[in-house]
Amino acid sequence: MTIKFCPNCGSSVTFKIPEGDNRKRHCCENCNEIIYQNPKIVAGCIAHVEKKILLCKRAIEPRKNFWTIPAGFLENGESIENGAIRETLEEAKLKVKELKLFQIYSIPRINQIYIIFLKEINKDDSFSAGDETYDVRLFSFDEIPWNQLAFQTVSNSIKNFIKDYPNNLKVYNDVLE
Amino acid sequence: MTIKFCPNCGSSVTFKIPEGDNRKRHCCENCNEIIYQNPKIVAGCIAHVEKKILLCKRAIEPRKNFWTIPAGFLENGESIENGAIRETLEEAKLKVKELKLFQIYSIPRINQIYIIFLKEINKDDSFSAGDETYDVRLFSFDEIPWNQLAFQTVSNSIKNFIKDYPNNLKVYNDVLE
Repeated sequence: MTIKFCPNCGSSVTFKIPEGDNRKRHCCENCNEIIYQNPKIVAGCIAHVEKKILLCKRAIEPRKNFWTIPAGFLENGESIENGAIRETLEEAKLKVKELKLFQIYSIPRINQIYIIFLKEINKDDSFSAGDETYDVRLFSFDEIPWNQLAFQTVSNSIKNFIKDYPNNLKVYNDVLE
Repeated sequence: MTIKFCPNCGSSVTFKIPEGDNRKRHCCENCNEIIYQNPKIVAGCIAHVEKKILLCKRAIEPRKNFWTIPAGFLENGESIENGAIRETLEEAKLKVKELKLFQIYSIPRINQIYIIFLKEINKDDSFSAGDETYDVRLFSFDEIPWNQLAFQTVSNSIKNFIKDYPNNLKVYNDVLE
């Protein structure tokens, strides 16, 4: 988001180092508001059953028509796990709970932190495409559409999951440049 | 932060559900900017050596004069681990690297996510109070000033660390109401 005006009073802002700080921020000289910009969290879920992983075909940009796990920006007032649960319901119409933390990615280049959970579902759990999704399917480990995955975070997470499945699942903390 | 004006064009904003969304956002009717507000990440580090933990006495509000681990808001362009490394340098003038992920707290009430790492330091590593710190000390496990800790996240994390130390360290994901 471009910041040219103060959200509090509407005056023009100055990009400078505030007193007691050590990096430049957008500062309002009129009402003294400082507008901080910080990384955002994307929460997601690898839902799996019997060596199959649930993937959604994206109906929105970016990466429309590519496959991804249910994931999206964490909202104010949510725990990370509840963010992943909400996204799974919105994008795949799949109800999950009690997720297991699996993978954190820092992506400093785009100011995003991905936090991905695991959930073993039942083979008769129902799911279907949500508003932002064209299709939802379970892919067996050897059918994953690697060349049609939407994001590198998704590809890497699924690789880690398959590599560790089922007895060596641990929590990863990685950086994607 | 109060949002009354559009940061992009300076017009008054309307609080409404944007098209294709399902929750209210601050929307600019003039330039169509949508101002999203999302949780912020606090990155911190439990630096420890020989059953002692490094704590900083806060020289700033909130919780001035109370003890805490080095921690602070993650900045744009940083990995979470580098945020914890920077805060440890700024607040305790202690150089650390290669941290181990330990604890995540979601605090939905205040829209914050704490991510805390561990680092075993050397007993002759140097540290001292940074600009936002009155004092830095190593406290042995039985000397932790429990009643003078700044935040519940810090207290809980140190309890988990002492409970698990040294052979049962795992990664926690918790919610603080």
